[in-house]
Amino acid sequence: MVQVSADSQTSTRIAVVGATGYAGGEILRLLLDHPGVKSGELSIGSLMAGSSAGTPVSDAMPHLIALADRTIEALDLEKLAEHDVVFLGLPHGHSAEIAKQLPEGMVIIDCAADFRLRQQSDWDTFYGGDYAGAWPYGIPEMPGHREQIAQSARVAVPGCFPTGATLALWPAVQAGLIEPKVSVVSITGVSGGGKKASVGLLGAETMGSLKAYNTAGKHRHNPEIVQNLTEVGGEGVQLSFTPVLAPLPRGILTTATAPLAAGVDEATLRAAYEQAYADEAFVHLLAPGVQPQTQAVLGSNACHVQVEVDQRAGTVLLTSAIDNLCKGTAGAAVQCMNLCLGIEETAGLSIAGVAP
Amino acid sequence: MVQVSADSQTSTRIAVVGATGYAGGEILRLLLDHPGVKSGELSIGSLMAGSSAGTPVSDAMPHLIALADRTIEALDLEKLAEHDVVFLGLPHGHSAEIAKQLPEGMVIIDCAADFRLRQQSDWDTFYGGDYAGAWPYGIPEMPGHREQIAQSARVAVPGCFPTGATLALWPAVQAGLIEPKVSVVSITGVSGGGKKASVGLLGAETMGSLKAYNTAGKHRHNPEIVQNLTEVGGEGVQLSFTPVLAPLPRGILTTATAPLAAGVDEATLRAAYEQAYADEAFVHLLAPGVQPQTQAVLGSNACHVQVEVDQRAGTVLLTSAIDNLCKGTAGAAVQCMNLCLGIEETAGLSIAGVAP
Amino acid sequence: MVQVSADSQTSTRIAVVGATGYAGGEILRLLLDHPGVKSGELSIGSLMAGSSAGTPVSDAMPHLIALADRTIEALDLEKLAEHDVVFLGLPHGHSAEIAKQLPEGMVIIDCAADFRLRQQSDWDTFYGGDYAGAWPYGIPEMPGHREQIAQSARVAVPGCFPTGATLALWPAVQAGLIEPKVSVVSITGVSGGGKKASVGLLGAETMGSLKAYNTAGKHRHNPEIVQNLTEVGGEGVQLSFTPVLAPLPRGILTTATAPLAAGVDEATLRAAYEQAYADEAFVHLLAPGVQPQTQAVLGSNACHVQVEVDQRAGTVLLTSAIDNLCKGTAGAAVQCMNLCLGIEETAGLSIAGVAP
Amino acid sequence: MVQVSADSQTSTRIAVVGATGYAGGEILRLLLDHPGVKSGELSIGSLMAGSSAGTPVSDAMPHLIALADRTIEALDLEKLAEHDVVFLGLPHGHSAEIAKQLPEGMVIIDCAADFRLRQQSDWDTFYGGDYAGAWPYGIPEMPGHREQIAQSARVAVPGCFPTGATLALWPAVQAGLIEPKVSVVSITGVSGGGKKASVGLLGAETMGSLKAYNTAGKHRHNPEIVQNLTEVGGEGVQLSFTPVLAPLPRGILTTATAPLAAGVDEATLRAAYEQAYADEAFVHLLAPGVQPQTQAVLGSNACHVQVEVDQRAGTVLLTSAIDNLCKGTAGAAVQCMNLCLGIEETAGLSIAGVAP
Repeated sequence: MVQVSADSQTSTRIAVVGATGYAGGEILRLLLDHPGVKSGELSIGSLMAGSSAGTPVSDAMPHLIALADRTIEALDLEKLAEHDVVFLGLPHGHSAEIAKQLPEGMVIIDCAADFRLRQQSDWDTFYGGDYAGAWPYGIPEMPGHREQIAQSARVAVPGCFPTGATLALWPAVQAGLIEPKVSVVSITGVSGGGKKASVGLLGAETMGSLKAYNTAGKHRHNPEIVQNLTEVGGEGVQLSFTPVLAPLPRGILTTATAPLAAGVDEATLRAAYEQAYADEAFVHLLAPGVQPQTQAVLGSNACHVQVEVDQRAGTVLLTSAIDNLCKGTAGAAVQCMNLCLGIEETAGLSIAGVAP
Repeated sequence: MVQVSADSQTSTRIAVVGATGYAGGEILRLLLDHPGVKSGELSIGSLMAGSSAGTPVSDAMPHLIALADRTIEALDLEKLAEHDVVFLGLPHGHSAEIAKQLPEGMVIIDCAADFRLRQQSDWDTFYGGDYAGAWPYGIPEMPGHREQIAQSARVAVPGCFPTGATLALWPAVQAGLIEPKVSVVSITGVSGGGKKASVGLLGAETMGSLKAYNTAGKHRHNPEIVQNLTEVGGEGVQLSFTPVLAPLPRGILTTATAPLAAGVDEATLRAAYEQAYADEAFVHLLAPGVQPQTQAVLGSNACHVQVEVDQRAGTVLLTSAIDNLCKGTAGAAVQCMNLCLGIEETAGLSIAGVAP
Repeated sequence: MVQVSADSQTSTRIAVVGATGYAGGEILRLLLDHPGVKSGELSIGSLMAGSSAGTPVSDAMPHLIALADRTIEALDLEKLAEHDVVFLGLPHGHSAEIAKQLPEGMVIIDCAADFRLRQQSDWDTFYGGDYAGAWPYGIPEMPGHREQIAQSARVAVPGCFPTGATLALWPAVQAGLIEPKVSVVSITGVSGGGKKASVGLLGAETMGSLKAYNTAGKHRHNPEIVQNLTEVGGEGVQLSFTPVLAPLPRGILTTATAPLAAGVDEATLRAAYEQAYADEAFVHLLAPGVQPQTQAVLGSNACHVQVEVDQRAGTVLLTSAIDNLCKGTAGAAVQCMNLCLGIEETAGLSIAGVAP
Repeated sequence: MVQVSADSQTSTRIAVVGATGYAGGEILRLLLDHPGVKSGELSIGSLMAGSSAGTPVSDAMPHLIALADRTIEALDLEKLAEHDVVFLGLPHGHSAEIAKQLPEGMVIIDCAADFRLRQQSDWDTFYGGDYAGAWPYGIPEMPGHREQIAQSARVAVPGCFPTGATLALWPAVQAGLIEPKVSVVSITGVSGGGKKASVGLLGAETMGSLKAYNTAGKHRHNPEIVQNLTEVGGEGVQLSFTPVLAPLPRGILTTATAPLAAGVDEATLRAAYEQAYADEAFVHLLAPGVQPQTQAVLGSNACHVQVEVDQRAGTVLLTSAIDNLCKGTAGAAVQCMNLCLGIEETAGLSIAGVAP
């Protein structure tokens, strides 16, 4: 837990940079219904952005009526430094520069990739530019992570695909129940592409269509998934990762297959997941026979997981569903903020999906 | 405000009948995040239904993980009577029979049409069967309604289309700013059709398609809209109502056109809406030039409204967006429950939409 | 009919300018399956465009495999003049400049608004810039239009909304069966917004959402609809036109309401439409009780129409469904080309929709 | 080629059984635009079905306006026997009974699974009931199949998933370029679920959601895929097959991963596919870097294929896109009919997709 305010009578001030992007907007949606904000212990301070600076929130984010009278500000480091918590929702490569100019005690939750990778070689291969190092990595449900996050004033929020894939895979990898030659196909809603003008992400191009992209090792989330699985299972992970764009606004369904390790059966597999997630508020192993569906986690911070053995194929099928903008980004960001601030981890985060 | 519990130490027990329908499921989603339920002042009791009795909630409503261990019960009036609040989410025609067998002091919130119409002739024409009379009508934002609801233990939750149309129209009708010859086209998401097996509502039939239905006076929501407009504006309302089915899960966009009354300009019109909704938490007149969009109210209890004059046509365009399952049904139901129980009206109801 | 080739042994050469836009791409799709192209009487010549010049068709339009080896060329008037037929699928305001530099006998089918409006005042109000006059207007199903088109080497293809609205309305307006105070709500798929990068038309912004736009007289298709109705019914048309964006790739559902003229009943109304469309291949009055749905006309040149009287409201409801890119643009363009060339009007144009 | 008519002056009569299902409707859509039907050489005879017998086509299939005056008939074997070609589009298990009562020379194209499997053990495990044997299997693009089909009066149309998976995989399997331990994830539009009332396939349940189903070896298309790969590559195929339901009406995107065989590179892989599909009208290997998208094949009989090596993972990624109702069912059925009748194989089948 971090001391965010010397003056106990003032509320903890939160700023969002990149406020009009999809990550920023979702962080704000969650904060507006956060009990800390409702009680006044937390308060929403500056909303900053790049090209949309000067835009009224009523134009940029008409779904956030409670902020309709606000105006998006340009990035202002001095002003930012007056806050206790800063969420960074910028494109990759901007966070490092900003973070190093902010006070040390300040809680910084970065939703970009800048501080996720622990190997510079991965950074160089998949991103390039200056390597900024790694911060505690924001999947509290991975072994040891919750503690690291709670003791830090800095968190790197994971990528959306790595969140879905890691939560589906780590218990099996850690327990050695599969050979770590994993084929992951992750199907995502279009908000994963971000809120920038683009022909390829037009409604007319994406509705009624399915398409794989950044295939065969080209997607930047590859090293992040490998890093997570290696962390729990050791070297030797071989990952084939295929992201697919599907016609829905939000949601990621991850399907992971891998060879079953010798002598493992479904009961053993199931037991490993039951144990891994027994005390977790947000990750749920579904009842046998029920497959995760993204609709069931829409707008929530929940991750639904299922495990199955395909005896004939000698493989395991591990599936998960998350809301890419919530547990996949903004929800994880708020969950990590709660941990950093010593607030109840689940505050402001629903586990009930907006279905149907 | 109704006294729901003689014993202040026990929590107010809430039952849902028709729990697995879309209205029932949404009521439960809202209740699960309701601060009253979180604090224990309210508690979720029996979940009853017809054909789905005996089904585990984990199967019927996988988005409600917090209730996954519950099982849907068959309708049991005796057991129902042990609750303080009952939500009825049944098909039309069942609520009256149940309601009359329940204790008088119990809060009953009916989501069906059974108690909405004040004229038996309307009931006979559009529904048929025994007429059960009318209960206080659950649009707290209509003049005088909030008070009626708060003093009653019975509320008839409005239809989803009447909610959207009434909130778009009543201030203009009441103030005589339009001639009450209104053409309403209301475009709805497919959850409006309910959760029953049907070829016409299959995904394959509805995705990628637009279709009007129950046109030219055939839709059962006609008399309800006329009743509301007549209540504020007097006799003489002529309504053309055209519902359209569109390929989205949730949301209703209502467009209403009517001849501008003599001498009225957009400023006058706008002022009437500003005044009507100045103190309302859930109904928002958008900034000039911003049209309502259903995405901006998804999952929320908000209704976004816009008003415009078309000088060339001599008409007014009034538009509104709601989530048909939330402000259009379950959100209104919870809002009315809050009023009946003397809880803060907005408790458990967000005004931030799950966009994008 | 126009003589397109002095040399009967060579095929009629067709060029498309703006080939990579949605109109251009759909024209090419239709031409590829046109019996004239299959037999060699027609041939697809140059594909020109602005910013996409130099792009392989395999990249720009992967659905047109038969043209995959072609490359998009830059606009070249000299080369264009070597063709017999030119389709112009450019943004508004470019066609006039190009057309005046092309040979007189050449068939030019313009999909933009440049030559649609017969009143300069309408052009000045809604478009602006130089007024280029009007060409024969490409709705062959309007009285007298088929003949005008067949005798011309120039056709102005109508806007998509005016096509849907006019086909739904003109028989009633011409026969005086309604008072011409018409409220039209036209719900369109997102391809209507064109293939240009834009945040507002992103999949994430449009899926799961409904939104009216260019409301209250602001949409440029207003004067075109009024022009068509005035042409058949005389002065006095008052139009309220509300376009709505809905989450489907293609399709326009038009709902039009108007006061019923005195003494008119549904049989009279129905008879007028039966007569108007009895010999039309593409416009179909549906059986009583069946409402048009856009899915049923997807990819086809058909327009489905329905008429109904709402006795209680004293109004008429006229509805139509078209594919905005086909009968609403490219299909009409090919239909007009067929007429200009003296080919069978229906050649290359299906009336069977790609449903479901 | 089969002699379909003793009397050369009469046209070849085609019946469709199960005419109102999605397969039946799509067969009719294709036949209506088939040049043979347009010229009168082929004619559409009886349309038969089970529960929808007696329904006007205008109600059951409003997209088929040219057949609007027809009425669906009950199954009548005697009447059926008067046709030259019969398409069977019934649920699995009905075709065998019908087929054995029809004349031997008649062309029967079965869209169900009844005659697909060559091993009774597969039939018993995945379907059950009487095993009817196997007919020539309708993927003309597999080695030797075109010839078998053309010499037969019976064809078993493949399942939609096996078509997508087989066309993506067989060239690599046959040439031994991959180890046959294949993980296939096939994402399908909702029309794959058929046109029967069902809660799970409601628009409200499927829009905005992604869900795997019949996972881990349970889907009935498993043995069919294995049969096809074994046919070209010999024993030893191990298949993990995961079907996923996605919110689009039509389309299947198949992603297949497998370990790269020793010493194989992308050029070798690509060459195998170029050779396999060089002369095929419907199967297209896309340019390097372009991934298949379902929109590009919508309504067409095309299959787009891409191949890639993931060096880091040591795997191959093979992807394909088809329209499940067209190349996946009805298009293949018409293609096979063309072969059986000695008509040009591509007649009535477009390769241009209805995009966007």
